[in-house]
Amino acid sequence: MGIKEDVMKMKLVSPKLAASSNEERNAALDAIAEALKANTDEIFAANHTDMENADANGVTHAVKKRLKFDEGKLNACLEGLEQLKGLTDPLGRTLLKRELDEGLVLHKVTCPIGVIGVIFEARPDALVQIASLCIKSGNCAILKGGKETAESNRVLFRIIRDAVTKAGLPEGILLQAEAHSEIDELLSCEGYVDLIIPRGSNAFVSYIMEHTKIPVMGHADGVCHIYVDKAYDEAKLVPIVLDAKLQYTAACNAVETLLIDRSVADKVIPVLSQAFGENGIKVRGTAEVTKLIPAEEMGEADFHKEYLEPVVSVKLVSGVEEAVEHINRFGSHHTDSILTEDADTAEYFQNMVDSAGVYWNCSTRFSDGFRYGFGAEVGISTSKLHARGPVGLDGLVTYKYKLYGHGQTVGQYASGEKQFHYKELQ
Amino acid sequence: MGIKEDVMKMKLVSPKLAASSNEERNAALDAIAEALKANTDEIFAANHTDMENADANGVTHAVKKRLKFDEGKLNACLEGLEQLKGLTDPLGRTLLKRELDEGLVLHKVTCPIGVIGVIFEARPDALVQIASLCIKSGNCAILKGGKETAESNRVLFRIIRDAVTKAGLPEGILLQAEAHSEIDELLSCEGYVDLIIPRGSNAFVSYIMEHTKIPVMGHADGVCHIYVDKAYDEAKLVPIVLDAKLQYTAACNAVETLLIDRSVADKVIPVLSQAFGENGIKVRGTAEVTKLIPAEEMGEADFHKEYLEPVVSVKLVSGVEEAVEHINRFGSHHTDSILTEDADTAEYFQNMVDSAGVYWNCSTRFSDGFRYGFGAEVGISTSKLHARGPVGLDGLVTYKYKLYGHGQTVGQYASGEKQFHYKELQ
Repeated sequence: MGIKEDVMKMKLVSPKLAASSNEERNAALDAIAEALKANTDEIFAANHTDMENADANGVTHAVKKRLKFDEGKLNACLEGLEQLKGLTDPLGRTLLKRELDEGLVLHKVTCPIGVIGVIFEARPDALVQIASLCIKSGNCAILKGGKETAESNRVLFRIIRDAVTKAGLPEGILLQAEAHSEIDELLSCEGYVDLIIPRGSNAFVSYIMEHTKIPVMGHADGVCHIYVDKAYDEAKLVPIVLDAKLQYTAACNAVETLLIDRSVADKVIPVLSQAFGENGIKVRGTAEVTKLIPAEEMGEADFHKEYLEPVVSVKLVSGVEEAVEHINRFGSHHTDSILTEDADTAEYFQNMVDSAGVYWNCSTRFSDGFRYGFGAEVGISTSKLHARGPVGLDGLVTYKYKLYGHGQTVGQYASGEKQFHYKELQ
Repeated sequence: MGIKEDVMKMKLVSPKLAASSNEERNAALDAIAEALKANTDEIFAANHTDMENADANGVTHAVKKRLKFDEGKLNACLEGLEQLKGLTDPLGRTLLKRELDEGLVLHKVTCPIGVIGVIFEARPDALVQIASLCIKSGNCAILKGGKETAESNRVLFRIIRDAVTKAGLPEGILLQAEAHSEIDELLSCEGYVDLIIPRGSNAFVSYIMEHTKIPVMGHADGVCHIYVDKAYDEAKLVPIVLDAKLQYTAACNAVETLLIDRSVADKVIPVLSQAFGENGIKVRGTAEVTKLIPAEEMGEADFHKEYLEPVVSVKLVSGVEEAVEHINRFGSHHTDSILTEDADTAEYFQNMVDSAGVYWNCSTRFSDGFRYGFGAEVGISTSKLHARGPVGLDGLVTYKYKLYGHGQTVGQYASGEKQFHYKELQ
């Protein structure tokens, strides 16, 4: 028994959710919070089972930190729900109100995307966040979490779905996919699912992108750069580079490649070399770099590589132009930063680098929905269409054109009997 | 010799065009207008050759009207260029300006999509419009027009490309694809081309969508509906239905299906039947309809059909709910209209129908970039992502996040040493 039939029903229910009011959707968020609080014992018990299974399977300590759903994570979820409730309704915003002619008025109004499938990593708190972002933005959601938290997901999903229905939202607006085979089934639901958001490894996201006709939002690679310009500030250099590489090595916004202006390489390289040594960061670089610092020599194609480990690629460049060209050629259009005290050089870099995030004198690690103040994110997009960078509520809505007439036909305008006059009404 | 190498170069040039000013891009539009005026003889001669070839190939009068490029079409192009020049710069608009913390400021700024491939029908004026929309929005463009206007396209493209370069924009920002084989080459340019916009038949657009990993914007089908509610106004009925079906039968926004409230069918059907008879419109319908009107009986699956001919499908429904459900199930999410004098019913219809255009008491034929006052359009999108409905300048831009720091690291915030405070700066 698969999920396709339920997805087809969901598609027909989705306009009802789209037509719900902000008050109704906020009441559902409240209901989720109440239900989570009322059922903590059951949730923690399910998570305990997942943690025991993880132990039995020899899962590492780092991964177990993500699987764990405790009082702290629950409180963070409750805080997130409260924040989300406070955000302005993303739906029904009038983006344009234009009189085309007397009695013929065009409105461009935001509305939900419709039905969204989200495939995410084994993190129970992610399930709560994604479900609530979709509810707030009026989108039906099909949720598929990582198998390592299957027990937690099952309990959390049931609690959330029941709470939302009891709060008065239409039935069938949330679905859970549990079996891995249901991913392929989900990918074949074109026409019923409007958007797939995959989160996970490069290989996984690439697989999704190549096996569906449904639009996919997300990112496969996160090859982020820091360019150290000749006008760099010494005090900022080591803290930013270490933060971008080490603060969370496995993150997509961690830095992978350092580009250094050749004219300051003899000052920059020894300082970085010492910092790398002290922090266990392995260096790879071009032949030129290996002469200045203990490093493994690498070929050009390796600059496409996302390490997600304490390894960094280093290359010397002749200035900001070459840095920009390297980034646009080898980067993944995610997040790139320049260290410089020269405002003109920074402006050139931020205008010319073709990435979702272009930073000046700060760590690449800032590209994140929470840090941008979006309340939460469903993912980070390196696509240029629709949403780019961290995707919050704004990235989960689209718009429709409503035209209000009084019997007008196009023939009247084609014949010259009537003329359009465009008048902005707001 | 293919176009891929030039496309790869274009990708690296595109940030330079993105960084150009509105004045520079407007100067290029002026240069195009001047060059078109200075070279009319050559343009008309080339078009003459295309028209002769069309005659030799027995092309119909209707199609020849689209191939023809005469004084009237030239003037419309010049007017379009002037209008486009007057439109606000779509680039560099600040969508968000937020202080995340002292000295850490986030800007969300519009920028071009980058490199766009447009494959369009045999209409020389379309080449001028598309090229100028791309220039104004700072996008590099690869243009592939219909083969029936090959001579006109070649001359127009050369004139436009030379004018733009002479006006000071970077070289290599416009490319022309001429051979049909170059379409497949273009479709394989993922990573270098950011967006493909195909215009043409359902089969052609579907082919494009299925043969590329590059995002595609456009529409395959245009199955548009008119729902005649029980509270319809008799005076509006026939003019709107005839306009929607006949004003331009081959257009994607022409109506294909009429849904009629069963309770008024005995009044509506005879009136429409007479109008259809007088205007040579063939009727197809459900078994129920064939009992009320001379009509060919059709099965349910045929309601997915786009006729693009003077043929209309008719079905009786029990009210606005069933109408909405039919449209969401069988429509193509393009443009649908309701005829009613009841504001609540209209509101229900406009909220619940999941289409790019939801109209009240007017013809579906209004969904068009010119009629919406966008100056021009590169196409109409039935996708929900990015741009929906007629796509003008706004649909050709995306945004990037610029973060301005003073040495901040994420570690400082993770450790609690610093706290985000979110302050909107505009």
